[in-house]
Amino acid sequence: MSQTIDLSPLLAELDPDQVVIDPDRVQGYRWDRAEDPAAGTPAVVVRAGSTADVQVAMRFAAAHRMPVVPRGAGSGLSGGASAVEGCMVISTERMRELAIDPSTRTAVVGPGLMNAEVKAAASEHGLWYPPDPSSYEFCSIGGNIATNAGGLCCVKYGVTTDYVLGLTVVLADGSVVRLGGPRVKDVAGLPLTKLFVGSEGTLGIVTEIVLRLLPKQRRAATLVATFADLDAAIGTVLDITARMRPSMLELMDATTIGAVEDDLRMGLDREAAAMLVIQSDEPAGTAAEEIEQIGALCESRGASEVVSTDDPDEGAMFVTARRAALVSLEKQGRLLLEDVGVPLPRLGDLLAGIADIAAARDVTIAVVAHAGDGNTHPTLVLDPSDPAMAERAQQAYGEIIELTLSLGGTISGEHGIGRLKRPWLADQLGEDVMALNRKIKEALDPFGILNPGAGI
Amino acid sequence: MSQTIDLSPLLAELDPDQVVIDPDRVQGYRWDRAEDPAAGTPAVVVRAGSTADVQVAMRFAAAHRMPVVPRGAGSGLSGGASAVEGCMVISTERMRELAIDPSTRTAVVGPGLMNAEVKAAASEHGLWYPPDPSSYEFCSIGGNIATNAGGLCCVKYGVTTDYVLGLTVVLADGSVVRLGGPRVKDVAGLPLTKLFVGSEGTLGIVTEIVLRLLPKQRRAATLVATFADLDAAIGTVLDITARMRPSMLELMDATTIGAVEDDLRMGLDREAAAMLVIQSDEPAGTAAEEIEQIGALCESRGASEVVSTDDPDEGAMFVTARRAALVSLEKQGRLLLEDVGVPLPRLGDLLAGIADIAAARDVTIAVVAHAGDGNTHPTLVLDPSDPAMAERAQQAYGEIIELTLSLGGTISGEHGIGRLKRPWLADQLGEDVMALNRKIKEALDPFGILNPGAGI
Repeated sequence: MSQTIDLSPLLAELDPDQVVIDPDRVQGYRWDRAEDPAAGTPAVVVRAGSTADVQVAMRFAAAHRMPVVPRGAGSGLSGGASAVEGCMVISTERMRELAIDPSTRTAVVGPGLMNAEVKAAASEHGLWYPPDPSSYEFCSIGGNIATNAGGLCCVKYGVTTDYVLGLTVVLADGSVVRLGGPRVKDVAGLPLTKLFVGSEGTLGIVTEIVLRLLPKQRRAATLVATFADLDAAIGTVLDITARMRPSMLELMDATTIGAVEDDLRMGLDREAAAMLVIQSDEPAGTAAEEIEQIGALCESRGASEVVSTDDPDEGAMFVTARRAALVSLEKQGRLLLEDVGVPLPRLGDLLAGIADIAAARDVTIAVVAHAGDGNTHPTLVLDPSDPAMAERAQQAYGEIIELTLSLGGTISGEHGIGRLKRPWLADQLGEDVMALNRKIKEALDPFGILNPGAGI
Repeated sequence: MSQTIDLSPLLAELDPDQVVIDPDRVQGYRWDRAEDPAAGTPAVVVRAGSTADVQVAMRFAAAHRMPVVPRGAGSGLSGGASAVEGCMVISTERMRELAIDPSTRTAVVGPGLMNAEVKAAASEHGLWYPPDPSSYEFCSIGGNIATNAGGLCCVKYGVTTDYVLGLTVVLADGSVVRLGGPRVKDVAGLPLTKLFVGSEGTLGIVTEIVLRLLPKQRRAATLVATFADLDAAIGTVLDITARMRPSMLELMDATTIGAVEDDLRMGLDREAAAMLVIQSDEPAGTAAEEIEQIGALCESRGASEVVSTDDPDEGAMFVTARRAALVSLEKQGRLLLEDVGVPLPRLGDLLAGIADIAAARDVTIAVVAHAGDGNTHPTLVLDPSDPAMAERAQQAYGEIIELTLSLGGTISGEHGIGRLKRPWLADQLGEDVMALNRKIKEALDPFGILNPGAGI
């Protein structure tokens, strides 16, 4: 398909350095972090600098019915930004506008900024942008919008959509809409801002974002508890969530603990079945009090060790162990990462079932979880030189999804469906909801050129 | 139109007591609290008891291309539930399912429950449903979903959409979809749950709702400050929001203070230009500390009186003055209620402009405001026996909207567009966003039978 489209009109309309057709450079835009082996090669990459540039590119693509893959930082884990053969990749990496307004506690940002850059800019004004995916230093805010990204603080502070007040979006026909704005309450018309958050580039390309900010987070108190018994750790999670709102409530299983300890030598307990990392950011005395209550809950469930601190540096070190999990696991083999979530009371069933699947398929499955919201990342660790293991892992991957659905769960809590999870989407949503998704998609993108094969 | 449709198949399929065709009883379903003089008379009212009943009614209406007006408690202030001539009203008042699950901190509720009933049921489990429209004792949770209702605590705790995890919706063709569920994080498919919250019954009829609950709110400390100067009060609001997150930040102007004092004789200061009612629900000592800091800010802006209390009963009394505002104003005349919002730094310009409009049109305009989120309720107080005043008031109503739009604001912060605000919707959204709204509407309701004339 790519060979048949004459790109010269596009080259004439955009700055030459915005349009990449060099085959070597184009390779760099084929994959995201999911490394989809089925990724195609783009015919052209547009590194847009403005909303107007995106409009030019979209109009060209629409005129030629050319598939368009929107791309942020390429840190996606579900293949939502992997290229389609002969497509146009529209990269927003250069759209790095940034303006903070302390008086409205809002930020206007370009999609190409990293999540960490938004956090840092807010922080200079004594403000805070809460959503904190583990990848916050190398994931873009545009990508966060596309997937409705979550993170560690979501258990108390919600996910990306809760902080999006307005969006500028280029639609499939190249027209542009400005939705919402710096107003906390606004119910005029359908809630379209929300419709685009989590739509994975299937309905339009976000070129500007108005974010709601909070006053700076208070210093958190931190607790780490290890358990010889996984069920005891999960029971503790439920004890906590039923009555308190910690600002972090994370779980690592034995395999993950081992991988982090191999990597970082922090003195973690390799004998533990599970470790909880918990923070409270309540005001000074109250945080310590809440952490103390949580410590008592851990002990009453038989925790083997409970350590707490209100020293931020020491607390950050504990959190480092959790944040390092994926990177440490990557050093053990090729990863196949899940992102399944269940209603909290089913968390134990999910983890027990995953252990059964790991045993039956003879694959290592490490589990890290945003336990407080039932969102887990079972991570299959593969020996890249063992094709038979890769096949067993693929089977296990599907079985984890089926298990999740049988427990009333979701196949993606925060990473998105992308291209990797799409085969299972209808199993979760059912045909009527799939039909509703398609109606919306067809209304906004009648030629199906926006991120085909991804999301919905 | 109504005369030509044979209702007997509908009567045969539903319980007789669910179908109201008696002309006297039908009258009770013509208006909501906006008392739209243009309201028509329904041909039939279906008081559905279940999702299946709503499906039967919708299928009948779809087959006959009959307009359908969904109705909750009829407490709407924008005419979103006022009847269309010859329509079918589908009332959800009898759908009062209620189940609380403390372990997931969720509630499954029928749309017919009052907001206050959901709050009370949550409270029995030590839990809290935050959204608190002033009408919480007589507005239904289904109506709250339809308008994405706000309230007083939203300045800290967000609006209805922030608490909706799942919806069961009957679509325009009578099919039913279950969206989301009791999972805090779920990004599978388009974010359709969010699309229905605030859609004012134009896309489907919500028959079941999964709500997220929080642990019980802490006892709040309360502060009331009066100001001889309105600008000083507004300046104080901005001082507070730039650095703190009070759980309530309300403003009443002199006219409102006078009306409440006339009604309740609470000893309010009739000389004041404005009164702020502020709460902090931070943990014990911290709330008192925050209220003290807020008190200092009020005094530095020249407040004439600052009274604070951490006694809940005394605090509730102060809040009563604010909550009574609308009812007290109703005793002064017929009301025409606005719901306009602006970015916070423009709040002073909005209130100054409203005062100018009141003077120019010689009408009384009382202002109560959820000041902390820039959402205001300028309330025109009319002498029902003076038709000339009614005409001037209508002009003033339109001028307030135009003023709001010139300040980058919204014509509705929390009440919805309904039928009353629809003439101004395109002025706010612009033609491109209107077209996008219509595309979605047409995709989901191709015959335009769902709440025609309302919302979008």
